[in-house]
Amino acid sequence: MATLGAPTKKHKVTIIGSGNWGSTIAKIVAENTKEHPELFQEEVQMWVYEEDVMVPKDSKHYDSSKGESPQKLTSIINTYHENVKYLPNIALPKNIVANPSVVDAAKGSSILVFNLPHQFIGRISKQLEGNILPYARGISCIKGVNVTESEISLFSEWIGEGLGIYCGALSGANIANEIAQEKWCETTIAYDPPPIDSRVATPTGPSPSASRVNLTITPADEEHRDVLGRISKTKLKALPSEYPPLDHATFKTLFYRPYFHVRMVSDVAGVSLGGALKNIVALAAGFVDGRGWGDNAKAAVMRVGLLEMVKFGKEFFGQTVHTGTFTEESCGVADLITSCSGGRNFRCAKMAVERGVSVDEVEAKELNGQKLQGTSTAKEVNSFLKARGLEAEYPLFTAVLDILEGRNTVDDIPALLARADDD
Amino acid sequence: MATLGAPTKKHKVTIIGSGNWGSTIAKIVAENTKEHPELFQEEVQMWVYEEDVMVPKDSKHYDSSKGESPQKLTSIINTYHENVKYLPNIALPKNIVANPSVVDAAKGSSILVFNLPHQFIGRISKQLEGNILPYARGISCIKGVNVTESEISLFSEWIGEGLGIYCGALSGANIANEIAQEKWCETTIAYDPPPIDSRVATPTGPSPSASRVNLTITPADEEHRDVLGRISKTKLKALPSEYPPLDHATFKTLFYRPYFHVRMVSDVAGVSLGGALKNIVALAAGFVDGRGWGDNAKAAVMRVGLLEMVKFGKEFFGQTVHTGTFTEESCGVADLITSCSGGRNFRCAKMAVERGVSVDEVEAKELNGQKLQGTSTAKEVNSFLKARGLEAEYPLFTAVLDILEGRNTVDDIPALLARADDD
Repeated sequence: MATLGAPTKKHKVTIIGSGNWGSTIAKIVAENTKEHPELFQEEVQMWVYEEDVMVPKDSKHYDSSKGESPQKLTSIINTYHENVKYLPNIALPKNIVANPSVVDAAKGSSILVFNLPHQFIGRISKQLEGNILPYARGISCIKGVNVTESEISLFSEWIGEGLGIYCGALSGANIANEIAQEKWCETTIAYDPPPIDSRVATPTGPSPSASRVNLTITPADEEHRDVLGRISKTKLKALPSEYPPLDHATFKTLFYRPYFHVRMVSDVAGVSLGGALKNIVALAAGFVDGRGWGDNAKAAVMRVGLLEMVKFGKEFFGQTVHTGTFTEESCGVADLITSCSGGRNFRCAKMAVERGVSVDEVEAKELNGQKLQGTSTAKEVNSFLKARGLEAEYPLFTAVLDILEGRNTVDDIPALLARADDD
Repeated sequence: MATLGAPTKKHKVTIIGSGNWGSTIAKIVAENTKEHPELFQEEVQMWVYEEDVMVPKDSKHYDSSKGESPQKLTSIINTYHENVKYLPNIALPKNIVANPSVVDAAKGSSILVFNLPHQFIGRISKQLEGNILPYARGISCIKGVNVTESEISLFSEWIGEGLGIYCGALSGANIANEIAQEKWCETTIAYDPPPIDSRVATPTGPSPSASRVNLTITPADEEHRDVLGRISKTKLKALPSEYPPLDHATFKTLFYRPYFHVRMVSDVAGVSLGGALKNIVALAAGFVDGRGWGDNAKAAVMRVGLLEMVKFGKEFFGQTVHTGTFTEESCGVADLITSCSGGRNFRCAKMAVERGVSVDEVEAKELNGQKLQGTSTAKEVNSFLKARGLEAEYPLFTAVLDILEGRNTVDDIPALLARADDD
């Protein structure tokens, strides 16, 4: 089946989503498809949730002759090459084509990049099911994981299982607006399809001994997945040999920019968990900072939190999770540092302690109806741990919820963490 | 030789040094010797570099009837139980005895805690040589390492070899004044004496497979040490069996407080290197922050820097160094976070970029004659790497020196670090 000749087909790339982060990722990808015609078709399709938008008066695209009449967001993007609503004042490459139909946008694409609010995943997957190339591969840029009392699932798994394709994950210390302005930062991409696709086992791909992601059922995994009550049933289709291989090197080429450095890893669960669990730790950092304990104490809760993130990953995703994903990659330690510097969870927790009020009060007063991710993640993770009798094994995660719910105060943190020092 | 009976002797502890950090550590240790009479003699000797001191007028110990006459610092400490000069307004435990003679202070002590400016190590070691218990053990709280073009040496090694004893190391995200006020933080203690002392191989001690510190010469180490041009010749004396064992548990008991959490490790080199190399990274973080690139970029240089710290440790201290010492302990990632939040190196580098002047200029203008550790460490580490042709393997460390010396600017950092992204 494999041919040794040069690939005759090029990858078509579709971005599913066009918000602040989706438009930024589309910009990056479109710059790279243009620079690498040996691998990719130049045109990048971007699915846009269609809406009527007024070009803001302060936009350079505002045309007084058209007055106040709203226009379609896709038409604005395709005319002005700018997403005036969600990523204003950033020029998008002309090879991005905004498309209001997700089915049409994804048609014939071998690479699907998912970058939309997680609430949309179910609906969009239903629309795409059966309408995509069966051998397509996905990358999810959606931060967070789904945690309920009974299970934790990764958005990349959800997408992959819904569409019957393999889906990796991208996460890092990435604030979309800064990247759109080409301020330098890094990210981590996890991609490790099961060996069904023989093209992956090239020297540039992940080694066969690298962590297996959740679509492969090894005996150890099987037992583990049983505990969590879900076993993937996806059967993957091999990428036809006419395409350039979809390996680490190809994905790095698709996402790497001089201002957006990329490290490829194989640990999809670790990459996904980092972006969710860090929000709990950021609340703890805010509590300690608000209490006036200084930078040492803040660094201490961050360190303890980082290790609880590792422990959580290893305990519930087993062999597939590597310590280094949390302690050495952008999706782990760097994202945690950023969130504990000026992130929303950090700031609200800090204000709550300084003002002597609850985090919920600060949230209601300061966030204009937006919700903190850390508080809901702390709750969900706690229910999940409680259902397994493991709360005490995660003293920082547990302390954060107990402080949020008034059973403890920040002053209890040192004593609550005493056991975390055990060698 | 070993007896199974209860120990009949108790450890006497001496603190060598009484500055800001030395007095803080003396407070911690004296609180613990009092609480643990089963292990330690209550009285803690503290060597004080004697000087004539005026009690400040705003001190509660200022006695207008004594007027302006200076008093001996040892006498002030022993009378008022406060180091009015170096740790003012902090009550010291009454079981600390300030002693102007280092030989007398260390006499009969089985535990020596070194906490003095590194410039004093040579002189003090000479005075102590032959005047201490031959089976004493040391802990160095002195931050940093000695780097020259030809070698890197640890202060703990220097002390240990000078006195013919084993010496471990304590380092962490530890600002003395905050700890003295009992604001919570953490630290890391590395202690792993070679197996000559049979008492160490208790179940609570480090496992035999744990990293060996530099006093033990294994074949691999021997080759390695040859490269660095130094081989330890220390012959250790076993601790008499009348004493409680000097293992991880005992040292943890000596240093752990509710406000000062301790993790014990075996990697002395890693613990010592963290406190030195972080200063180079803090300069890089300051450059990037001063350039206005935001928290993502700052977290990115910290992450890259942390991995260069690991690489440096492994390359020059081989098997004895663990990645986790840098990425998981207070002496590594937490100390780095603190230094990159508000540390002096970070602040001066940031100001330099903001003002468009050199770091040397900021140093001269802002630091009142004090010197930045990061700039000298960057220079020393670079000469060491250059002498081995390894500069290019450490792109961040090298970039920092090149920016300090005007060969590059902060804008070059992303391109200079591009190779750090290689998988």
